Amino acid sequence: MAQNVYDDDVFFAGYAALPRSVLGLDGAPEWPALRGLLPPMTGRDVVDLGCGYGWFARWAVAQGSARVLAVDLSARMLARARELTGPTAAITYEQQDLERATLPGAAFDVAFSSLTLHYLADLDAFLAAVAAAVRPGGAFVVSAEHPVYTAPSRPAFAVDDAGRRTWPVDRYLDEGPRTTDWLAPGVVKHHRTMATYVGALHRAGFSLTELVEYGPTHEELATHPEWAGERDRPMFVLFAAVRRP
Amino acid sequence: MAQNVYDDDVFFAGYAALPRSVLGLDGAPEWPALRGLLPPMTGRDVVDLGCGYGWFARWAVAQGSARVLAVDLSARMLARARELTGPTAAITYEQQDLERATLPGAAFDVAFSSLTLHYLADLDAFLAAVAAAVRPGGAFVVSAEHPVYTAPSRPAFAVDDAGRRTWPVDRYLDEGPRTTDWLAPGVVKHHRTMATYVGALHRAGFSLTELVEYGPTHEELATHPEWAGERDRPMFVLFAAVRRP
Repeated sequence: MAQNVYDDDVFFAGYAALPRSVLGLDGAPEWPALRGLLPPMTGRDVVDLGCGYGWFARWAVAQGSARVLAVDLSARMLARARELTGPTAAITYEQQDLERATLPGAAFDVAFSSLTLHYLADLDAFLAAVAAAVRPGGAFVVSAEHPVYTAPSRPAFAVDDAGRRTWPVDRYLDEGPRTTDWLAPGVVKHHRTMATYVGALHRAGFSLTELVEYGPTHEELATHPEWAGERDRPMFVLFAAVRRP
Repeated sequence: MAQNVYDDDVFFAGYAALPRSVLGLDGAPEWPALRGLLPPMTGRDVVDLGCGYGWFARWAVAQGSARVLAVDLSARMLARARELTGPTAAITYEQQDLERATLPGAAFDVAFSSLTLHYLADLDAFLAAVAAAVRPGGAFVVSAEHPVYTAPSRPAFAVDDAGRRTWPVDRYLDEGPRTTDWLAPGVVKHHRTMATYVGALHRAGFSLTELVEYGPTHEELATHPEWAGERDRPMFVLFAAVRRP
């Protein structure tokens, strides 16, 4: 079973204070790029894997989705999601371990998963479950922490002897767990190379149509100078793929 | 026109002494991985874009290729290639600027290009020419210096204050020329993100089937301890793609 860090008190409190928790999708700087990869939602059956507070599920319904199945490992996240959502027949929240997901077969036009992949130890099992749940020709739009971001032993900017800010990559090709202290001590993320993500999507039955390495534009930096390092190394990778027949 | 660094005396002399020049394909550590992406060569029409000394062209013919068109910008490289090849009707060497390549339409089953992409300023023009030359269903196997390798202002390992060897990534999302002093001073390489390579291949009409980030195995490190850093960051990226109908 995946580490359920989200139900840890310290992590949950830290997570609750993040802009993306307070503000929803608009608090996630990569959301416009992710939204750009999505097909039109009108009338579509959608599954959200790692739904958190349900921001995406509610957005999809507001865009005209027929129904959304929203899955998360964390009971606390789901409780908050249900609270924020209120009564609606269009969204079903379910607690599941995504490494052992049980989803209806060929039931969805769109699968979505935001910043969840890097918490899963068994990528292939997850992708097989998604591929079985998506109809041929359906879309899978998924984001993860970028391999350049997850690789380092010490994931923090350094300053080189010429005074330049650099991101100290090591162990890139050595995949496996990386323990960090993000929000709570001992959070385990799984580092994978870009080749592994691309190969795993292909083997699972998806054809990659777009790959985005998210970083703020120079215009966004003018209003958010604190994001400057985000152009020195990509923080997130976003994939759009189509389920092969 | 692309910078023709290969005809520079200092660069040419340095290049001639590299293991991959002296030993051919077996002197290129990534060759087994690249070969693994290629379809069977028997009876195939092949084009090699950036052929250098012609090692790949001769290998393809030895594997049964019907004919190979081998193109390079450098007259000196081509002269050496012809010398090493000797008389044969199966290989045609041609001098062309790959940014303005003129190739026969839908004439090839396999297009190959090794470590040439990052010297080209106009990636889209090059890929459009390749796509027009490859038959639907045909293969394109291509390698380049990895974006993590080309990004840094200062492309050399550093040692952090805990004594770890790290690769100092900066400017990853800022694409464009990077001037290095590899073999000769002032060699211009074009840094592009992984997203740009993947997107450009797709837009040109290719479907990506495999992506390899080359690094030596732990077994290879046992015999080549001097390669240890090559697992800390990927040096080469290898793509296999199929021409869509």
